Amino acid sequence: MEFLKVTKDDGIARVVLSRGKVNAINEKVVDELSKCFKQLADDPTVKAIIFTGEGKFFTFGFDIPEFLSYPKDDFIRYLTKFTDLYTYLFLYPKPVIAALNGHTVAGGCMLAISCDYRIMVSGKVRIALNEINFASSLFAGSVEIMKLLIGQRKAETAVYSGAMYSPEEALELGLIDRIVSPDEMETEAHTIAEEYAGKDGAAFKSIKHLLRKTLADDFTLREKDSILEFVDIWYSENTWKQLQDKTIRS
Amino acid sequence: MEFLKVTKDDGIARVVLSRGKVNAINEKVVDELSKCFKQLADDPTVKAIIFTGEGKFFTFGFDIPEFLSYPKDDFIRYLTKFTDLYTYLFLYPKPVIAALNGHTVAGGCMLAISCDYRIMVSGKVRIALNEINFASSLFAGSVEIMKLLIGQRKAETAVYSGAMYSPEEALELGLIDRIVSPDEMETEAHTIAEEYAGKDGAAFKSIKHLLRKTLADDFTLREKDSILEFVDIWYSENTWKQLQDKTIRS
Amino acid sequence: MEFLKVTKDDGIARVVLSRGKVNAINEKVVDELSKCFKQLADDPTVKAIIFTGEGKFFTFGFDIPEFLSYPKDDFIRYLTKFTDLYTYLFLYPKPVIAALNGHTVAGGCMLAISCDYRIMVSGKVRIALNEINFASSLFAGSVEIMKLLIGQRKAETAVYSGAMYSPEEALELGLIDRIVSPDEMETEAHTIAEEYAGKDGAAFKSIKHLLRKTLADDFTLREKDSILEFVDIWYSENTWKQLQDKTIRS
Repeated sequence: MEFLKVTKDDGIARVVLSRGKVNAINEKVVDELSKCFKQLADDPTVKAIIFTGEGKFFTFGFDIPEFLSYPKDDFIRYLTKFTDLYTYLFLYPKPVIAALNGHTVAGGCMLAISCDYRIMVSGKVRIALNEINFASSLFAGSVEIMKLLIGQRKAETAVYSGAMYSPEEALELGLIDRIVSPDEMETEAHTIAEEYAGKDGAAFKSIKHLLRKTLADDFTLREKDSILEFVDIWYSENTWKQLQDKTIRS
Repeated sequence: MEFLKVTKDDGIARVVLSRGKVNAINEKVVDELSKCFKQLADDPTVKAIIFTGEGKFFTFGFDIPEFLSYPKDDFIRYLTKFTDLYTYLFLYPKPVIAALNGHTVAGGCMLAISCDYRIMVSGKVRIALNEINFASSLFAGSVEIMKLLIGQRKAETAVYSGAMYSPEEALELGLIDRIVSPDEMETEAHTIAEEYAGKDGAAFKSIKHLLRKTLADDFTLREKDSILEFVDIWYSENTWKQLQDKTIRS
Repeated sequence: MEFLKVTKDDGIARVVLSRGKVNAINEKVVDELSKCFKQLADDPTVKAIIFTGEGKFFTFGFDIPEFLSYPKDDFIRYLTKFTDLYTYLFLYPKPVIAALNGHTVAGGCMLAISCDYRIMVSGKVRIALNEINFASSLFAGSVEIMKLLIGQRKAETAVYSGAMYSPEEALELGLIDRIVSPDEMETEAHTIAEEYAGKDGAAFKSIKHLLRKTLADDFTLREKDSILEFVDIWYSENTWKQLQDKTIRS
């Protein structure tokens, strides 16, 4: 694994995303995360997983400069893999704790909200589904998961404004479940993972499917169309210009 | 337009309902609103819409005295147009801000909750889906939109009690998004409309469909049956008597 | 009726579950409740129902010691009757007020959340869907009703943790609607039932179906599969051992 560090300790696996300064998501990151989570699903010694990032970002989202060089068909292939990944996480048979060590933005937020629990560091970090602010749409599944997590009305406010929420605002919204200081993050995430790991695995998996399977089946049917519409908007004149400006500025 | 005043100013259209003292909704009002919103959807200079009323009412709801003279088939035709109107608003391709200048009752509440944002004047105004208090039912779409907006349990309380909520109670419930003094209403509504108008229109439309389309498709399938059941109850002995009493008293 | 006491007073029926110290639910209890509620649905003098228990428990849930002697096919037959019962309550044509006189646990909680309103006594009583803590799963309908009542995220927390909530915590979650002292319970439950009974019965029934019917149709399609998965886990080695331990301890 080029961009993941995986450790296991007494039933708890730790998956750390580590790619440059902002942990930007590209196709290789998605391939590695998919493969890694599948291996951990099959590993009978693993009872719960902590999913986190290295440095000051959980992840800043898609690696936009890299994707600006993608032909449309390749980008569709990537987006299909990406939406498959968050859907897989959403239905993952074991508990996944997102330990949000830093900024959790756009595609990064989509991965975070697909997990079972979100703990975030205090401070100047932000979490957002801010795609509208660079004239981009979203995906069917990402919108449905956001609606489930915080309710229809709050989800509308979040995705129409593209607001960058502080940990306190995110906790109030229900977008995260707990705030801890950076020092306590590793220990606290471990404690929460142990609580989940202490439950019967078969019962957890069965109950999680009762909670989430129909929803995922429903949005999966609409995901392909939503990707095609996302791509149409992404390559439109106005959006493309904003993506290029964003790339140059950053 | 006999009952609507429409103005446009720098990308923001303002639709003002003006029919008598209480802005009661009849078939002509529904026809005019449908036509007006369709024209504004097609007008490329319009980026967002403010929907408001004149005087002390946003609208008191259906013009019951007028509908008491309607034969059943005509009433079914009217109700079909009315539910089509709120469904059209619910999926409207541009942002619609409901500026609730006064009482927002029954059918009027159904139009308000179909918009993207609700700002209400402070004071002795009320908002309610109070149909149960004159022994009337509701429509599939109106119930689903209410559930989306404030959640299943609060929606049950609201429609079973028929409570007339103050702006403060409505804000607490999530039925409205902001309260302003009557003096500030026009300016504040404009400011909010401008925030929405500032977003990319294609991205907004795409995200709004992701948020709402499946829900609307689902309730639309059940709307016709709900209208027929509504009509059965409306013309039943007990309800008819209450509608007549209500008409005489008002 | 061996385990139910039913009284009627001026349009309000009172159904009291009375079986041993903990009002444990067995097949006879389910048969009697189903029959009793069907009779009250057909009784034109009854406008609303109070559903409560005798002693310090509303109900502790399934009579586990009794079910440990059930062959698998008989247990499936029982579970089908039980899920039919809560679905019937969920769609019941008249208002049902759950007067939670004491602990409301597991299967007992499933019956309570299917009613229209929940009032609970103050004090050391608890309410929980705690099945995961004896390595048991849940049913499709029970999970959906829980999600409706308190939202997806809070429902996940409740059923993954199996937390035993105090009345104050349950009120905060939205799992109950009001807390009263044991002395006031009977009067308060009656007052609430009278408020519901004061509404037009045809309008109430129609609105309740608009609020709940599609949801019930949807989870009913998945209920049989969820029962079979529940049974697989129930008779698995780990769960069976925990059920036996629980039985010996209690």
